[in-house]
Amino acid sequence: MGSYAFGFDVGGTNIECGLVGREGSIVWRSRVRTEPERGNEHVMSLIAGQALQGLRDTGIPASDVSGIGIGMPGLIDPKRGVAILSANLFFRNYPVAAQIAERTGLRVCVENDVRLYVYGESLYGAGRNYRHVLGLTIGTGLAAAFVQDGRLYSGSGYSGEIGHIPVDTNGRPCGCGLTGCLETVVSAPGIVRQAIEALADGGHPNSPLRRKHADPSLLTARDLSEAYDEGDALAAAIMERTGRLLGRTLSYLVPMLSPDAIVIGGGVAQAGERLLGPVKEALYANIMPVYRDRLAFAAAELGDDAGILGSARWAFERTEGEGERRPSE
Amino acid sequence: MGSYAFGFDVGGTNIECGLVGREGSIVWRSRVRTEPERGNEHVMSLIAGQALQGLRDTGIPASDVSGIGIGMPGLIDPKRGVAILSANLFFRNYPVAAQIAERTGLRVCVENDVRLYVYGESLYGAGRNYRHVLGLTIGTGLAAAFVQDGRLYSGSGYSGEIGHIPVDTNGRPCGCGLTGCLETVVSAPGIVRQAIEALADGGHPNSPLRRKHADPSLLTARDLSEAYDEGDALAAAIMERTGRLLGRTLSYLVPMLSPDAIVIGGGVAQAGERLLGPVKEALYANIMPVYRDRLAFAAAELGDDAGILGSARWAFERTEGEGERRPSE
Repeated sequence: MGSYAFGFDVGGTNIECGLVGREGSIVWRSRVRTEPERGNEHVMSLIAGQALQGLRDTGIPASDVSGIGIGMPGLIDPKRGVAILSANLFFRNYPVAAQIAERTGLRVCVENDVRLYVYGESLYGAGRNYRHVLGLTIGTGLAAAFVQDGRLYSGSGYSGEIGHIPVDTNGRPCGCGLTGCLETVVSAPGIVRQAIEALADGGHPNSPLRRKHADPSLLTARDLSEAYDEGDALAAAIMERTGRLLGRTLSYLVPMLSPDAIVIGGGVAQAGERLLGPVKEALYANIMPVYRDRLAFAAAELGDDAGILGSARWAFERTEGEGERRPSE
Repeated sequence: MGSYAFGFDVGGTNIECGLVGREGSIVWRSRVRTEPERGNEHVMSLIAGQALQGLRDTGIPASDVSGIGIGMPGLIDPKRGVAILSANLFFRNYPVAAQIAERTGLRVCVENDVRLYVYGESLYGAGRNYRHVLGLTIGTGLAAAFVQDGRLYSGSGYSGEIGHIPVDTNGRPCGCGLTGCLETVVSAPGIVRQAIEALADGGHPNSPLRRKHADPSLLTARDLSEAYDEGDALAAAIMERTGRLLGRTLSYLVPMLSPDAIVIGGGVAQAGERLLGPVKEALYANIMPVYRDRLAFAAAELGDDAGILGSARWAFERTEGEGERRPSE
């Protein structure tokens, strides 16, 4: 029952760490390069090292730290604290919680990074004034999480993979084995691919997207936002199509979940209204007034802090059994 | 903290009542005609009368009854125990819980009937061996509810209206104001309508559906099941289309909810594999193996008892704050 907890967001590029007070203030933070190709042990050393550094730098005694919460991409078993498959980080059936606990002497819990990001946004960010929050991140992929009355929902362990809903039976094969999955369109690579395909064979000769890079495969989602602002019809059409597809998909989820707010984050969400406008329009046109009238719709607010705050909060709850069942083991 | 609770399922035709032991045994039961056209007060008298009758018949003292749980169709505010809009029963902003509490001296809680039906099936019926259960009823309409780890989920109060997901933008207008809603196809009236439309203008001259009734508007979903069993291609095509549409819709919900089981009940579910076969096929073809491999799919088992058992369990929980927050008022 300490006053602080560590929150970690472990990505393929950086490890973000914060030492967080019980009310959600980040009193110390650090960031290191992950370099996952150097091995699982190396990543463990970096995480444990940051935690120990945080204690030294702040002078906060370990006895006043409730625990360490760690968000990692991929398939995580939160009960056992094991990274079952975290492909970007080269983890497979790796006992993250046990390793970090041994190296730090602190209690450790691990969860999927999107869930903890959404948890942070729900409690401290764009969702903080709402009871039931559906949160999404759109970046390299697309995933969601759901926070109910301040509790993070996991289902049977795989909740939130809405990027792998097949929305387009005539669409492209997805890495997951299905065809036309939502994230083949609604993601940074999906948006870029739509642009590259439209530009192929001399299409859209006057689009400013043609002038961004000598090699069109270098296009980014940000380039699309810039072209949109330059009045490019192609960029606008792609944003519109992409946004509407997401909005239509959300119109399936809202009647089931009856959320009070939808919060959208991740790199692609930086397109802002260019993309979120069509999302909201398609969503609101396809849900009953009883949902529409009470549903807030917002871009995420916290950036990298969302993962840190969500992970730290998760540590408070999981290691103390506060508002959440204790791990059964 | 009594040993018993009353469970009520108040429908437009009958009121089903059971006095239920804490472990889920129905020790006494009754059924009366609702006759809602006789007024709200009349329905209140019937409910209270059944409860008092149950106490007299069994000799169980009121002090050993935790409370009364009541499932009613339509829009219910469980916090205040008010039927906001229960059109079939002609209730509007009616304080059901307060009325029944006054007449019986027992604590009373009210919820939507589909939710309590699914709750009963989840805890005592086809979902009893699963943690996270998505339950549906298909009858005059289509609705769903979700039970997580034994807790009934309500969202912001309107969770489960999946019958009003617009799945077919070229479809028919729905009473809710949207177009092509799922329940315009996947429901008893939806199935019958498909048959009537196919038979119009001399279509399918040899279908046995033509011989069921002189007036085709008298067709029922049960007639379709019978025609299916007689080898009717039209009935088979309607079941296939209807089932596939529901399966595809569920393929949007499963990646978000990650349930362990899907349980389907209601009158139309009596079509059994004729309908549920295509549902399951379309669902399993459109979800990732990680969901498919662990997802049970079953028809409801308890019939009318599901509502009674779910309502009684709800009474135990709501009136004792067991596994569920106490009403805030």
